[in-house]
Amino acid sequence: MAVELDMRSPDFEARFVALLGAKREAAADVDAVVAEIIADVRARGDAALAEHSLRLDRVDIVAMGVAIGAAEIDAAVAACDAEALAALELAHARVTAFHERQKPADLRFTDALGVELGWRWRPIEAVGLYVPGGAASYPSSVVMNAVPAKVAGCKRLAMVVPTPEGRINPLVLAAARIAGVDEIYRVGGAQAVAALAYGTQTIRPVAKIVGPGNAWVAAAKRRVFGAVGIDMIAGPSEVVVLADATADPRFVAADLLAQAEHDAAAQSILITDDPALARAAAAEVERQLADLPRRDIAGASWRDNGAIILAPSLEAALPLVERLAPEHLEIIARDPEALAESIVNVGAIFLGPYTPEAIGDYVGGSNHVLPTARSARFSSGLGVLDFMKRTSLLKCDARSLAALGPAAVTLGRAEALDAHARSVSIRLAAEAGR
Amino acid sequence: MAVELDMRSPDFEARFVALLGAKREAAADVDAVVAEIIADVRARGDAALAEHSLRLDRVDIVAMGVAIGAAEIDAAVAACDAEALAALELAHARVTAFHERQKPADLRFTDALGVELGWRWRPIEAVGLYVPGGAASYPSSVVMNAVPAKVAGCKRLAMVVPTPEGRINPLVLAAARIAGVDEIYRVGGAQAVAALAYGTQTIRPVAKIVGPGNAWVAAAKRRVFGAVGIDMIAGPSEVVVLADATADPRFVAADLLAQAEHDAAAQSILITDDPALARAAAAEVERQLADLPRRDIAGASWRDNGAIILAPSLEAALPLVERLAPEHLEIIARDPEALAESIVNVGAIFLGPYTPEAIGDYVGGSNHVLPTARSARFSSGLGVLDFMKRTSLLKCDARSLAALGPAAVTLGRAEALDAHARSVSIRLAAEAGR
Repeated sequence: MAVELDMRSPDFEARFVALLGAKREAAADVDAVVAEIIADVRARGDAALAEHSLRLDRVDIVAMGVAIGAAEIDAAVAACDAEALAALELAHARVTAFHERQKPADLRFTDALGVELGWRWRPIEAVGLYVPGGAASYPSSVVMNAVPAKVAGCKRLAMVVPTPEGRINPLVLAAARIAGVDEIYRVGGAQAVAALAYGTQTIRPVAKIVGPGNAWVAAAKRRVFGAVGIDMIAGPSEVVVLADATADPRFVAADLLAQAEHDAAAQSILITDDPALARAAAAEVERQLADLPRRDIAGASWRDNGAIILAPSLEAALPLVERLAPEHLEIIARDPEALAESIVNVGAIFLGPYTPEAIGDYVGGSNHVLPTARSARFSSGLGVLDFMKRTSLLKCDARSLAALGPAAVTLGRAEALDAHARSVSIRLAAEAGR
Repeated sequence: MAVELDMRSPDFEARFVALLGAKREAAADVDAVVAEIIADVRARGDAALAEHSLRLDRVDIVAMGVAIGAAEIDAAVAACDAEALAALELAHARVTAFHERQKPADLRFTDALGVELGWRWRPIEAVGLYVPGGAASYPSSVVMNAVPAKVAGCKRLAMVVPTPEGRINPLVLAAARIAGVDEIYRVGGAQAVAALAYGTQTIRPVAKIVGPGNAWVAAAKRRVFGAVGIDMIAGPSEVVVLADATADPRFVAADLLAQAEHDAAAQSILITDDPALARAAAAEVERQLADLPRRDIAGASWRDNGAIILAPSLEAALPLVERLAPEHLEIIARDPEALAESIVNVGAIFLGPYTPEAIGDYVGGSNHVLPTARSARFSSGLGVLDFMKRTSLLKCDARSLAALGPAAVTLGRAEALDAHARSVSIRLAAEAGR
């Protein structure tokens, strides 16, 4: 059973702070091991990749080939359920349509002094996509990570996925094909991140690495950051359901459990102004847990990290939402739009009783890679801009340089950067002498 | 004297790869020390801040007050040269006007199925700005970092700046006032980064930290990443000047030295198709170095990291520019626009003979915080988007859920996430039973 908090209790603030501060994930200290693996792959390339894959994934990538080729993907696609393939195609089409709208515009303008200014956006040329193996190998995540890269125009999208004991989810390969992934390699862990960052004889290096992974992958991404770009470091997932008396407790409970089943470290929180809903939803969670396939995981998450918070009103609870800065916020209440309007710190908002978060996970169209662990305070879900970069453009002519130059000379000298000042004054003097 | 390379030499590729791979900055291994300082500030707050400041900056921040107050800023502004203040005001106005154009648009639309989708952008609520002390304490950088945050609408912009022996550049405080910085604290180093990330009794925590710093600051930013957002890890600065026979060698030399004077680790590279320009520019560099105040630094940079590359044509040299992925690219040639058009990996382009990079450093309007050390392959200069975040919005009604839901149920089951599938199917069943 989740903890129950009441905003009107005298100890509420202390208990809420404890909830906020609770460490849901033990940070394994794998940094030293990861540093060694990265150094080894940099030094020995494919040979190191093969050794670490044999040791950690018990797979002989030399015998099987590092790259997963077209014939292997064909066979995987043929092995997939037709309904699942159709659902993935629908997801791909909708996610593509949504992300097409995120393409940024270039700009070029001339200001009053005659200075030409602007910027232009270009795709990152080569991107690496990390896909976890085993239980957390989700085809939907392949679509969510690959589509914005492809919409951005990235020319080369290289995917890595570990294949423990040689096993791989065929639907992951199908998703990669549907999403237009250009290369797939059967490697995972820190060694795969190192290969993408620095290249090996077989895998050409990329400029940015995205995608979720375990503690080893996260530590490796943190280490290679700078040599390549990385996306956020993914933490355990969370949902806040903000619901009033109009909400159906069965829907609320189902949504809390959908979050909880991801991982024992996931967090599901119900905030409501209706004590009856709080009771009914809590009872429904237990009832629905009983025959849920992943009831052990979901039950542990709900017991250890779940919470039900009673508030005098949903408006009064909004500051709690801001402090939680959840990855996902569902609002199942009389006027969801009005409640959503003021909230700043949240990755995605799901409005009304007919928008379970799972729709956004799969086929809504928006991206399901969202900021976790309170990082919605400072970051956004994955999008097209994450796969592009902006170059600024500046052009003066003799006249606009004459207008702006003296101020630049002044500032260069004020900063004791005389060569800066001179690079302007030498031009002003040359023009004056013409 | 810089190295000279000729694209037509048989050993060119090897020498170019050596130039690309040269480590310009010794990475001091300060990570363990930084980890201790951060842990200490988290544990003891202001007391730890005071001790580290006394030890490292030889300044008693308890006696002076951690915060720099209005009276101290007034006094600093009064001590500034009027011409420098006016130049800063001009820089602020132009940088603000440029960045106003970067404000992103919200979107809301309803698709053919009746699903409402969209996103909205909101400013990050609290941002920390690190400003180096001592020699690299640049008022222009305060403007460049603060303006996009203010244009984004950040409510709270807290600046930290070390004051070794109590000294601070008055123009830095003036720039902070002009740029609308809300709070200023006289602390620096890893301890200041820790204070911004986790808060102390005096300094409230922020959600994101930006600004350049030394190896300790960079290591601290890397460590607190996740708890807060960070900008890029700044490396040594670089320029490529792409010039043909039309270029004035005096201008070219001045621009190479403007880059070189930053830091011995800075890198200036001239690429030209004109051997006469190569010779004349090399001679001009030596001539201009002779009476340059920072000739020791600029000379070391040019000697150790500078390069002149002869190419059969500027078009033929474009692939080299891509591989260098320079922070700054100047094009002083017959048709700079045509050459600029195809280049992807570059932070900023300065077009034509009248656009020395120093104009962009100060008063052009575009941001001078740009991706260094080849990170232009995957990242952009600082801008308004770095201080905002996007929340996605999704809303289905009963009808659009009926259309989309079955595919979500299929994918949930295919991923063995049955609670995901159920959160949709429970609604579909409830509607069907109505």
